[in-house]
Amino acid sequence: MHKPVYIAAYHQSEFGKLMGMTVPEIIKASVGGVCQEIKADPSVVDVGSVGATCTYTLNQQGLLAGLMASIPGLAGKPIESVENACASGGQAILSVIYKLLLGFGEVGIAVGFEKMRDNEGKMDGKLIGQALGVFSHPDERPGKTYIFPHIFAEVMADYMKTHGVTERDLAYVSSIEYGNANNNPYAQMRKIKVTLDDCANIGERNKYIIEGLPLKTYDCSQITDGYAAVIVATEEGLKRLGVAKADTVQIAGFAQATDSLLRADRNVLKAEGARTAMAKAYEMAGLTPQDVNVAELHDCFTVMGAIGTEVVGKAAYGQGAKYWVDGKASVGGECGINTSGGLIAKGHPVGATGVAMLGWSAWQLLGKVPPALQVKNAKAAATFNIGGPICASVCTVLKPGA
Amino acid sequence: MHKPVYIAAYHQSEFGKLMGMTVPEIIKASVGGVCQEIKADPSVVDVGSVGATCTYTLNQQGLLAGLMASIPGLAGKPIESVENACASGGQAILSVIYKLLLGFGEVGIAVGFEKMRDNEGKMDGKLIGQALGVFSHPDERPGKTYIFPHIFAEVMADYMKTHGVTERDLAYVSSIEYGNANNNPYAQMRKIKVTLDDCANIGERNKYIIEGLPLKTYDCSQITDGYAAVIVATEEGLKRLGVAKADTVQIAGFAQATDSLLRADRNVLKAEGARTAMAKAYEMAGLTPQDVNVAELHDCFTVMGAIGTEVVGKAAYGQGAKYWVDGKASVGGECGINTSGGLIAKGHPVGATGVAMLGWSAWQLLGKVPPALQVKNAKAAATFNIGGPICASVCTVLKPGA
Repeated sequence: MHKPVYIAAYHQSEFGKLMGMTVPEIIKASVGGVCQEIKADPSVVDVGSVGATCTYTLNQQGLLAGLMASIPGLAGKPIESVENACASGGQAILSVIYKLLLGFGEVGIAVGFEKMRDNEGKMDGKLIGQALGVFSHPDERPGKTYIFPHIFAEVMADYMKTHGVTERDLAYVSSIEYGNANNNPYAQMRKIKVTLDDCANIGERNKYIIEGLPLKTYDCSQITDGYAAVIVATEEGLKRLGVAKADTVQIAGFAQATDSLLRADRNVLKAEGARTAMAKAYEMAGLTPQDVNVAELHDCFTVMGAIGTEVVGKAAYGQGAKYWVDGKASVGGECGINTSGGLIAKGHPVGATGVAMLGWSAWQLLGKVPPALQVKNAKAAATFNIGGPICASVCTVLKPGA
Repeated sequence: MHKPVYIAAYHQSEFGKLMGMTVPEIIKASVGGVCQEIKADPSVVDVGSVGATCTYTLNQQGLLAGLMASIPGLAGKPIESVENACASGGQAILSVIYKLLLGFGEVGIAVGFEKMRDNEGKMDGKLIGQALGVFSHPDERPGKTYIFPHIFAEVMADYMKTHGVTERDLAYVSSIEYGNANNNPYAQMRKIKVTLDDCANIGERNKYIIEGLPLKTYDCSQITDGYAAVIVATEEGLKRLGVAKADTVQIAGFAQATDSLLRADRNVLKAEGARTAMAKAYEMAGLTPQDVNVAELHDCFTVMGAIGTEVVGKAAYGQGAKYWVDGKASVGGECGINTSGGLIAKGHPVGATGVAMLGWSAWQLLGKVPPALQVKNAKAAATFNIGGPICASVCTVLKPGA
């Protein structure tokens, strides 16, 4: 249908705190770092895109394309920012793919980042809640202090009630992910040890967030600084870069779909737009969920770990949580899901998240992740990145480049 | 090279004040309005994109794609936001074109808007200055109260000195544009009459903005609310819409290029990235500047009216102001430039601006603008939309669809 595109290189910061790094420095480190992974000069890059969401409000910085273009070798090229809330990173990768497939070049770079904490590494929960809250529908804000935790607490309650799932079932998602993060040197929670009981039960560090709703501290993803960058290339681009196909993964399928921002407009549990995008990505790749034994999906809250497992097709509708309870999502299970630690334990630097999903999945397929996290015979991977209340979805299917 | 794409419909609000309209209402009015122009149901639209820049900071609203998707018939489709500062509207059109050319559909909709004033129609200059200031490089902010007026006041001084141009020469741009706006019912300054002397000389309403620099009040574009939307379609899409090619214009050429955000990195007067984009657009269209007798370009300040005239190829380097002084840019001149009134007198609702450039140019080529503004024998049009200090450029070349 169209020419194949490959991930030629991936680079990310440790997720956690970027301290005093400025946005221009973050963009420079992202581009420089990913080029360095394959000893490429940035001038080989033909097109670029950037995804970041709170950059306007928390960092007082827009026109990120112009920061990328300020790197020697990148001026005068097609570069833009894209935004679909927490799916902005995935969208940046799509934007690069689009431009390559349209013939604007052979090598592209997608950068995602978020700088959510201050220069001392501290976070202002209320400020961040406001900055993220703008990605909700105004009609669904009144009465909510922390908008997205509140919305997803409602989704969690709905999921539990509809599917007969318990808080403890969903705690499998977070406890398994924390366990994974303990072995991922890039993960924000790499040093934090938690048990299933810690995640399932109320305790000193695990409290209900919204009165009357089941969401607890360990059900939530992290407030994280971090950046991630990929170099995407056509076959011609790989030649120019001197990267062998065997050292790449192919982005064999990709699709995007956006549903109404108003959660009340639809049954979020059914995730219709997300399923549309995922189905298109599988179809483009010529693969089915059965072919995939690696997945990175958007567990901004544990319930999304469950729903995401359904969206990528590894569990039937309503069976996503059970997949985790049964150990099928674990590193040694049927499909290693969020072996990186996921948004809950690797961290969720919003704009970087979608980029990092593809990057980590690529590392899995190339056998490059730490041994304790490596899925054996990793065959193909699915990624599922969302923005808003399963509003905007970016889905991809990856397979080894050779 | 690729299949042709056409503007099947255009719709815009009056530029000026949207008063109490909320962002969801603006998106709904944009989509509904442009569909109504050709009696199409939104469900015929396959893909969408939105451009708006101060939406996060002034309107506390992101994930605009989800607002578009909330319109019945649009859920589950590929929709995203794009940002290249004041070129976001043009970028939204490109984003739609990309998705159509990649085969994601046959009909797309691009919406651009900005809601910069409050619900009483008042503007808070300092707040807006901050909101727009985030699109500058942080190294170029210190010591500037109004960042972009200050940067462009420096560019103006540089242009005048380098090319031997006077403040009065540049006042031709604004006075001609105000004159055009007086005949454009959509223009913010449609009722404001100013003479060349008013624009050229210091007076009660025309004051120097930055001490020691030549920029005056009438050299500046307006703080404007407004929205604009286009339906872009392939030939297949036009059939589906029941729109005859004779009622469309073809987006025959388009390109985008981004230069460094740091003005000090380069000679802004040379506008290298912009020239690269414009040259690509002409080449794709198979046309030259000589073929064009309509242009809409990004006169955020009068000096950009001059530089833009050079970028679109109607004047040699340094001769852009003279083109206006000589009357060649006027409605009856060699090429009617900013016959809409431009950003200076039609108004500059940031995200809408790039969309409105194509929309007005389409109306010119279709003979649909008010008689006093209609370019006779309008043959082809060039548009030039920028973000930042000529940092991100979106250029297009339009010709009649049949």
